[in-house]
Amino acid sequence: MDGLTERVRAFAEERDWQPFHTPKNLAMALAGEVGELLAEFQWLTPEEASRVMADPEAGARVRAEIGDVMIYLSRLADVLGIDLVEAALTKLDEAATRYPVEQAKGSAAKR
Amino acid sequence: MDGLTERVRAFAEERDWQPFHTPKNLAMALAGEVGELLAEFQWLTPEEASRVMADPEAGARVRAEIGDVMIYLSRLADVLGIDLVEAALTKLDEAATRYPVEQAKGSAAKR
Amino acid sequence: MDGLTERVRAFAEERDWQPFHTPKNLAMALAGEVGELLAEFQWLTPEEASRVMADPEAGARVRAEIGDVMIYLSRLADVLGIDLVEAALTKLDEAATRYPVEQAKGSAAKR
Amino acid sequence: MDGLTERVRAFAEERDWQPFHTPKNLAMALAGEVGELLAEFQWLTPEEASRVMADPEAGARVRAEIGDVMIYLSRLADVLGIDLVEAALTKLDEAATRYPVEQAKGSAAKR
Repeated sequence: MDGLTERVRAFAEERDWQPFHTPKNLAMALAGEVGELLAEFQWLTPEEASRVMADPEAGARVRAEIGDVMIYLSRLADVLGIDLVEAALTKLDEAATRYPVEQAKGSAAKR
Repeated sequence: MDGLTERVRAFAEERDWQPFHTPKNLAMALAGEVGELLAEFQWLTPEEASRVMADPEAGARVRAEIGDVMIYLSRLADVLGIDLVEAALTKLDEAATRYPVEQAKGSAAKR
Repeated sequence: MDGLTERVRAFAEERDWQPFHTPKNLAMALAGEVGELLAEFQWLTPEEASRVMADPEAGARVRAEIGDVMIYLSRLADVLGIDLVEAALTKLDEAATRYPVEQAKGSAAKR
Repeated sequence: MDGLTERVRAFAEERDWQPFHTPKNLAMALAGEVGELLAEFQWLTPEEASRVMADPEAGARVRAEIGDVMIYLSRLADVLGIDLVEAALTKLDEAATRYPVEQAKGSAAKR
């Protein structure tokens, strides 16, 4: 993970792309890539979507879109000085408190 | 990173949330969280957005939203059997070929 | 529709919000509202989602989110000098050429 | 506006696309199109974004993306039985109450 962050940073710096990589722009780029990911799933039934990785072409596209989303997310976190995994773990701990196992079991009340 | 994937999976399984965690639903939830992240930046000038982490309250909100995005992204990748970091590195290699340093320098042609 | 565009414009101008209503910011706000709309549907089964308007509370939330999306979309179009309905009709004509009825029938190839 | 709704509905029905046009799928498609719209703005400075319609090629792309967003938004509203303009006006009235002119003037507190 740290390796990825550094690779993405080096990629941007070698191309002098830092001026474009502002938090606003990266957040927009992240949303754009998530939009492309949604497009892979939008017309599939839930069943088709669950089997998507078994289709070599569609599976490769989904994998590529997920890769793009991860690139921009790690770049945005890097630019903001946020540790991605740590931020996720902190939120997961909060969610564990907010959705205690016994009450949350099988309920979609929130997620 | 593997630790996060496992923690998120355990979190979902303990609550019997697997039926909700289909690829379509997780992609929607990911997009929803990215929308909340965008909302943190939308009315800021580029300069204000670049200093957002210096503001304790706004900074905490941005960090929390980034954490949420990362949780759903790692969960979606896990459900699809995709290695998040590997998928990002593969795309980064492709991007390096598509945007050679010398031609891409300082140009926003694509990104 | 023209009435809406004018009402939204007056709303923004009365509050001196024009400086915030740049195309970039409005596009982000639009995406943020679409994220909130997605959140209303993300954990529902396709069947539950199709019946969502029959639930007074969820239906009211969906209606409100759709309203928010429409407000930002019409404001963005206004700021860019684009006629929303005309832009949609132009694209619909193009789509009719690209997806002739006979070939497109029942196929999700594109949409 | 009503004409657009009917034209989009006829377009979908002629192609037997109703089974694909569920609320969940249409919300995803809407988000996907908004992602493409964001992509048009993401690397532009605020000034470049404000002049985007003066560039024939970029302007045509933005207009087309806005048209796509409007198509899916009106289709989603139609499928849910929501009047798009009415839903927006209702929300605008609520916003007028929540952000009284005198307090909201020039402040980005919320929007």
